[in-house]
Amino acid sequence: MKVGILGATGYTGQELVRLLQQHPEAQIIFLGSSSSAGATYENMFPQFMDSQLGKLQDEQVPEVDVLFCALPHGLTAARTAEWLKRGIKVIDLGADFRLKDPEVYHTWYKIEHPAPELIPEAVYGIPELYREEIRGKSLVANPGCFPTASILGLAPLLKKNLIVANSIIIDAKSGVSGAGRGASLGTHFSEVNENFKAYGVAEHRHTPEIEQQLSLAAGHSFRVSFTPHLVPMIRGILATIYAQVEDGVSEDTLRECWQEAYQDEEFVHILPQGMWPQTKYALSSNHVFLQLKLDERTGRVIIVSAIDNLVKGAAGQAIQNMNIISGFPENMGLGARGIWP
Amino acid sequence: MKVGILGATGYTGQELVRLLQQHPEAQIIFLGSSSSAGATYENMFPQFMDSQLGKLQDEQVPEVDVLFCALPHGLTAARTAEWLKRGIKVIDLGADFRLKDPEVYHTWYKIEHPAPELIPEAVYGIPELYREEIRGKSLVANPGCFPTASILGLAPLLKKNLIVANSIIIDAKSGVSGAGRGASLGTHFSEVNENFKAYGVAEHRHTPEIEQQLSLAAGHSFRVSFTPHLVPMIRGILATIYAQVEDGVSEDTLRECWQEAYQDEEFVHILPQGMWPQTKYALSSNHVFLQLKLDERTGRVIIVSAIDNLVKGAAGQAIQNMNIISGFPENMGLGARGIWP
Amino acid sequence: MKVGILGATGYTGQELVRLLQQHPEAQIIFLGSSSSAGATYENMFPQFMDSQLGKLQDEQVPEVDVLFCALPHGLTAARTAEWLKRGIKVIDLGADFRLKDPEVYHTWYKIEHPAPELIPEAVYGIPELYREEIRGKSLVANPGCFPTASILGLAPLLKKNLIVANSIIIDAKSGVSGAGRGASLGTHFSEVNENFKAYGVAEHRHTPEIEQQLSLAAGHSFRVSFTPHLVPMIRGILATIYAQVEDGVSEDTLRECWQEAYQDEEFVHILPQGMWPQTKYALSSNHVFLQLKLDERTGRVIIVSAIDNLVKGAAGQAIQNMNIISGFPENMGLGARGIWP
Amino acid sequence: MKVGILGATGYTGQELVRLLQQHPEAQIIFLGSSSSAGATYENMFPQFMDSQLGKLQDEQVPEVDVLFCALPHGLTAARTAEWLKRGIKVIDLGADFRLKDPEVYHTWYKIEHPAPELIPEAVYGIPELYREEIRGKSLVANPGCFPTASILGLAPLLKKNLIVANSIIIDAKSGVSGAGRGASLGTHFSEVNENFKAYGVAEHRHTPEIEQQLSLAAGHSFRVSFTPHLVPMIRGILATIYAQVEDGVSEDTLRECWQEAYQDEEFVHILPQGMWPQTKYALSSNHVFLQLKLDERTGRVIIVSAIDNLVKGAAGQAIQNMNIISGFPENMGLGARGIWP
Repeated sequence: MKVGILGATGYTGQELVRLLQQHPEAQIIFLGSSSSAGATYENMFPQFMDSQLGKLQDEQVPEVDVLFCALPHGLTAARTAEWLKRGIKVIDLGADFRLKDPEVYHTWYKIEHPAPELIPEAVYGIPELYREEIRGKSLVANPGCFPTASILGLAPLLKKNLIVANSIIIDAKSGVSGAGRGASLGTHFSEVNENFKAYGVAEHRHTPEIEQQLSLAAGHSFRVSFTPHLVPMIRGILATIYAQVEDGVSEDTLRECWQEAYQDEEFVHILPQGMWPQTKYALSSNHVFLQLKLDERTGRVIIVSAIDNLVKGAAGQAIQNMNIISGFPENMGLGARGIWP
Repeated sequence: MKVGILGATGYTGQELVRLLQQHPEAQIIFLGSSSSAGATYENMFPQFMDSQLGKLQDEQVPEVDVLFCALPHGLTAARTAEWLKRGIKVIDLGADFRLKDPEVYHTWYKIEHPAPELIPEAVYGIPELYREEIRGKSLVANPGCFPTASILGLAPLLKKNLIVANSIIIDAKSGVSGAGRGASLGTHFSEVNENFKAYGVAEHRHTPEIEQQLSLAAGHSFRVSFTPHLVPMIRGILATIYAQVEDGVSEDTLRECWQEAYQDEEFVHILPQGMWPQTKYALSSNHVFLQLKLDERTGRVIIVSAIDNLVKGAAGQAIQNMNIISGFPENMGLGARGIWP
Repeated sequence: MKVGILGATGYTGQELVRLLQQHPEAQIIFLGSSSSAGATYENMFPQFMDSQLGKLQDEQVPEVDVLFCALPHGLTAARTAEWLKRGIKVIDLGADFRLKDPEVYHTWYKIEHPAPELIPEAVYGIPELYREEIRGKSLVANPGCFPTASILGLAPLLKKNLIVANSIIIDAKSGVSGAGRGASLGTHFSEVNENFKAYGVAEHRHTPEIEQQLSLAAGHSFRVSFTPHLVPMIRGILATIYAQVEDGVSEDTLRECWQEAYQDEEFVHILPQGMWPQTKYALSSNHVFLQLKLDERTGRVIIVSAIDNLVKGAAGQAIQNMNIISGFPENMGLGARGIWP
Repeated sequence: MKVGILGATGYTGQELVRLLQQHPEAQIIFLGSSSSAGATYENMFPQFMDSQLGKLQDEQVPEVDVLFCALPHGLTAARTAEWLKRGIKVIDLGADFRLKDPEVYHTWYKIEHPAPELIPEAVYGIPELYREEIRGKSLVANPGCFPTASILGLAPLLKKNLIVANSIIIDAKSGVSGAGRGASLGTHFSEVNENFKAYGVAEHRHTPEIEQQLSLAAGHSFRVSFTPHLVPMIRGILATIYAQVEDGVSEDTLRECWQEAYQDEEFVHILPQGMWPQTKYALSSNHVFLQLKLDERTGRVIIVSAIDNLVKGAAGQAIQNMNIISGFPENMGLGARGIWP
């Protein structure tokens, strides 16, 4: 199967290449880049030296079966209709098709949505929640990294009305790769290392995406507090989530709800009681690690969810979605476990 | 003035030595260690090479004016009465005199308090809250690092009833030095770097200390959610705090409350609106950085507080307390600003 | 094919498990550990959660086709004869069979060699140098990490007499995982991060191993200066090597020598001129990156070689050797490229 | 005494501010910046919040007693004559006055020297070598960071003809702050962390500076091999130096030579035998740590030298020079020891 990548020089693009090289069915025939067309991919990214990946091309997309778009928001939606018309299946790793309401998109992303008529065509690509809807779709909105970690922890509990929706607080922490490959003072080693900070407080763009999906799970609309932080590490997201439990809900009930939801999910691991997720468990893999505890003193459940932001939070989940829409086993090419240490 | 340090080989002990060397009045005449007595201090800690600090002694405390105790809990309280009797002023950097109720101590520290009769003699050493009570005392309970960061952000707001006490959630993040100098798998570089995790979820011993002080500020007893996390960095604490505001309270009101409380405090900095604390602002210094934002969407205020856990969170605050009980200017020897980068 | 691992809880052991899980022919049926027998492997190492790896066993080796030994020196040699007798092929990732001369072993490792009669049976397992000798062997001495990086850079040049043997200086740098999983002050995050040091100066045990192999390549015996350093990172080795070139040797000659030696080696990459190796190019992969420059000002060639110490420097090379002695394609299960970033 | 800083927003500029705040005689009255004039210094660099440092000014230098120039090469020399005429003492932390030969400057810095006539006025500012020459000078060329670490290790041995000059190899390692505050892919956290590389191989601009000073010490001209490397840490330089010893020279002779040279130097510490320098010993301080070993097997001495690149390698040494030319005690304001951990 022929695949292409738009935005092949970013971190998500590189991660797609790394993972697709391990995929037995996918063949990368197109690496597109607006800024680096003409450059030899392996000379820019020597980890792939002697891989025969060829040169970066411009953004003219050739005949591919699946196209991965790892572009800034706004750039994918404008061209998607054309690709779909040509029979190309599109997996958008950007934000263009994640929000169902173009006005919400406008409010948070500050531009008019370039193709609102396509929004209903898109499916939100968390297979653990929407596997059946994804099958047969041609346009997948691959979720954001923070939403993936947050939603996997919360959605089953909200569906069963076990927690109080509007009490939810998500305190999330991300490695620096989440900010992309662009150089700035904010990603400068000397400014980031031995440092820790919050950012985008009460205004991060993943907020409406999380709210949309959690509201769908709960069956009613509500708002969450979401605060991202920057950790002096490269990869990984850990979300610490607080919620009041509904009256009479026990820790066992919460745990059983998760177990039921995830018993057949090979990428989701509910850790043994008392063992808390670490981001490194997921490093370089598509796996998710979950734990919770009901604090009887306060009546709040504390949920911790950990993923690799570039794999389950981006490229890995995108390939998981590719497998589903292409009829491959869902785990094809994604079997590797996290590297340690 | 003659000072001594018990537990001089730990990170807090080393930090006391570093800071006291810059103090114009304090002369270190005693470095005590149960495990390393007889060793030359500068050979163990070459950053002090040629400082004439002499040898580590055992734990027999000579005549000093002020004794800093940086020992595990339980060890200081048992010997404090004797030191006080000899006229030595004691600053305990451990946990023995922080909790007013020996039963609470028993519940969280799992041992009987060795000297409950001394608890009323001790003052909780956050100068910004208890400056007048500290003056003239001979026994100071130097606060924990997480409590220092948390209480400085919350106490003024609770005193003025601006936030809902039992809605408070403290999501705190610490550098690895907070775990001390003991080697374990949990502090192993290969296990900690490129990793992030929560620990002590709903059971960390700083919880009752925070609750005690915040309850005193609020005028009534309540509980908080407190979750510490381990950041792959050496120093620094950042606390992200969430609380529902009382009806009608605006962000301006919250900010003014802080400004009133801290206008004369040289170590506490309320950052300009929109600028969020980073732990590195405080690195190696006794300074505290604060910011808040009222999220109108959720009705919650988000507070961020940053300190260096070994300075304002331990050795620096101890010297600030020493200055107060000794009649020196409170900032003596503590003038240095954080190193950057 | 059935494989087993002795010393399965160390970093090399975990890395063997990670890589063997990706190998289509090898099936791990034995994970041995003297210290943790009885523990469930996945609970100790949650990155493998739900992998059905079972429990750690004691050191009684069952019927396996290949046994990987990742034990401290001295422990493997004592038991190897028994395993060979049982028809088990042994790949020793420790130091027991690397040195040809048991007296040299005694000098550097401070113990009598436990089985000197087996030394001639062992082959030194750098496939790029000894592929034909490895084929058909039942005992492989898997090289040390520093020797692998150093020898791959130097051996071809020495074979062709292009550099002055006794002018060689190897200044090597390693990530912390090279020191193993044992917790000590020397691997404590707070002591290692934001720090850099040399260690084992003029006395590191990899010195005689490097000298032996380089002397074999040169055809005469000589000594090298070798200094390892500790880098505040987890994985990776970079060796910076200095040598006087023989009269009349040009940079082109040196480069052509490498190209001839490595043109068919898929794991060895001579970077384009002017592009210098970074350890991260190799991170988590079995690949080697090389560059050199002849400094006309001094007449010295500067060689830089980079590998992942746990893969090409340990577990990956061991599996490469396993593939050779088992008749599999040499790259089976080792196709993955380095993760970036 | 009034001092000013040109280039006050770089890392060296910030470090000058931090250290000068601790200096009892110096008063910062001018912070100049071409790019950020008009900005409030403390809002850019919150570690100095509430320090009353005022606004950044443009590059018009007011009446100051001492001016620190932390500018890119070429910019300082063009304006120095004017400042000297106005009676301002100039300490140049850039490269303009370090090389005695303007042709060498041209060769390595690729521009014509803007003021060759001033070169003879300048003194090379390593007080441990040139203290008497510095006294009374008005123009100090503050040394580069790599040269400081290298020269302090080698100069005494060369003066006494104990080592073979043209055998010297300097393998140096630096933290990322040495690359300055400019954001680029090369300083991006995700590219630097968990990574190690050489750079500027056989072409780094500190090479001629090192060669000039070592040649002066030896009394004859020669060349060195110098290779810098980038360590994933913020601060610190460690130089590992190799040299053949002259016939009959013992380790004791080498050590005694150092001890004689540095016995009265309070910033230079020769560590006890067998204890090797770590960059963290020097972190945030003006101190230098040295060790050596004569490897009898190879006849080479291995020297290790460690400093903080921003203090002894830049701002600290500049203040040491300021103290000398201003008649203050040389250690004034520089007493602080390194922070640990």
